[in-house]
Amino acid sequence: MPRRTAEDVADSRAVATRHAVDVASVEGLEGLTIGRLADELGMSKSGLIGRFGDKASLQLAVLDAAVARFTEHVWGPASALPAGMPRLERIVDAWVDHLRDGVFPGGCFVTTASVEYDARPGPQRDAVAALVRRWLGILEAEATAAQAAGDLPADRVPADVAYELHSLASGGSVAGRLIDDPDALERVRRAMHRTIGR
Amino acid sequence: MPRRTAEDVADSRAVATRHAVDVASVEGLEGLTIGRLADELGMSKSGLIGRFGDKASLQLAVLDAAVARFTEHVWGPASALPAGMPRLERIVDAWVDHLRDGVFPGGCFVTTASVEYDARPGPQRDAVAALVRRWLGILEAEATAAQAAGDLPADRVPADVAYELHSLASGGSVAGRLIDDPDALERVRRAMHRTIGR
Repeated sequence: MPRRTAEDVADSRAVATRHAVDVASVEGLEGLTIGRLADELGMSKSGLIGRFGDKASLQLAVLDAAVARFTEHVWGPASALPAGMPRLERIVDAWVDHLRDGVFPGGCFVTTASVEYDARPGPQRDAVAALVRRWLGILEAEATAAQAAGDLPADRVPADVAYELHSLASGGSVAGRLIDDPDALERVRRAMHRTIGR
Repeated sequence: MPRRTAEDVADSRAVATRHAVDVASVEGLEGLTIGRLADELGMSKSGLIGRFGDKASLQLAVLDAAVARFTEHVWGPASALPAGMPRLERIVDAWVDHLRDGVFPGGCFVTTASVEYDARPGPQRDAVAALVRRWLGILEAEATAAQAAGDLPADRVPADVAYELHSLASGGSVAGRLIDDPDALERVRRAMHRTIGR
């Protein structure tokens, strides 16, 4: 039996991570178990542990991968645009689109993780909080640039704008899924555009 | 040993329900177990089962009690005010206040329950969805009355206003707890007032 190459291992780690992100978006990061993933992926438990380490390391790896997927879909389309309002408007649309398109089968990955860990201290909570703070910081910087360019009213507080956008996307996506409202995401989109409107 | 009176049973059911609402607000309704509650309350498992039935019945009773607590704190202060903007403004403030004051130790009860059940069909999901729809309907009726009185711009869609308020409170309360932002709830309050502003 040939030895697995480093490349094979990296490939199977990527496949396992992608699947784990999908599972965690529905069941939460606490819903991930090595045994379940091994079953679903047709891998051995020891193989998974070899690739990820313990459950906490797996959860942090999955969180990183979820951030990468969000960044690709939401920040990616906007990144080449000028800072400020052009970029902010594109972020808003890409954000709602990624919810509409089911980039994460469970909806908003970060909201699920936020609810799981908001009252549960530990490295997972620290990691989720850090990424939310980073994302709010990015939004605030864009709002600040938009304001400097006169595209956002001078009396708006950029940190408020960032927080409003995050709250609307997070709360709006969850409620829409729960009540099966086909208009929910367009309501969220309109509300987010109002938030950055003049 | 004297027999327990019907009144004793009702009292201990109320105590157990109150405690279970607090636990579920932190751990989720799925985090409730008969064994754990029995331990924490110093009651027998059979006594709890006698009062609530199975786990699903307990969860539905806890959800009803959470709705009653929310209604008392958020709808209560507003109910005597005239329909429309006076009532809507009072609801917004009482809503943010109940989050600030920790009426539920885990923050927004309904958001936790929404994330738990948005992808998990069953009577619990149906019950959570029904109460969110009912609350959105109440908000929409107030927004409609406010608009009829000229207190909300004619181009605003009342169902959008309702959905925005719910999204902001839900998403904003979760993120604020996660990132430990002491300003979060005041940001949410300002955003909600903007939503119903002229």
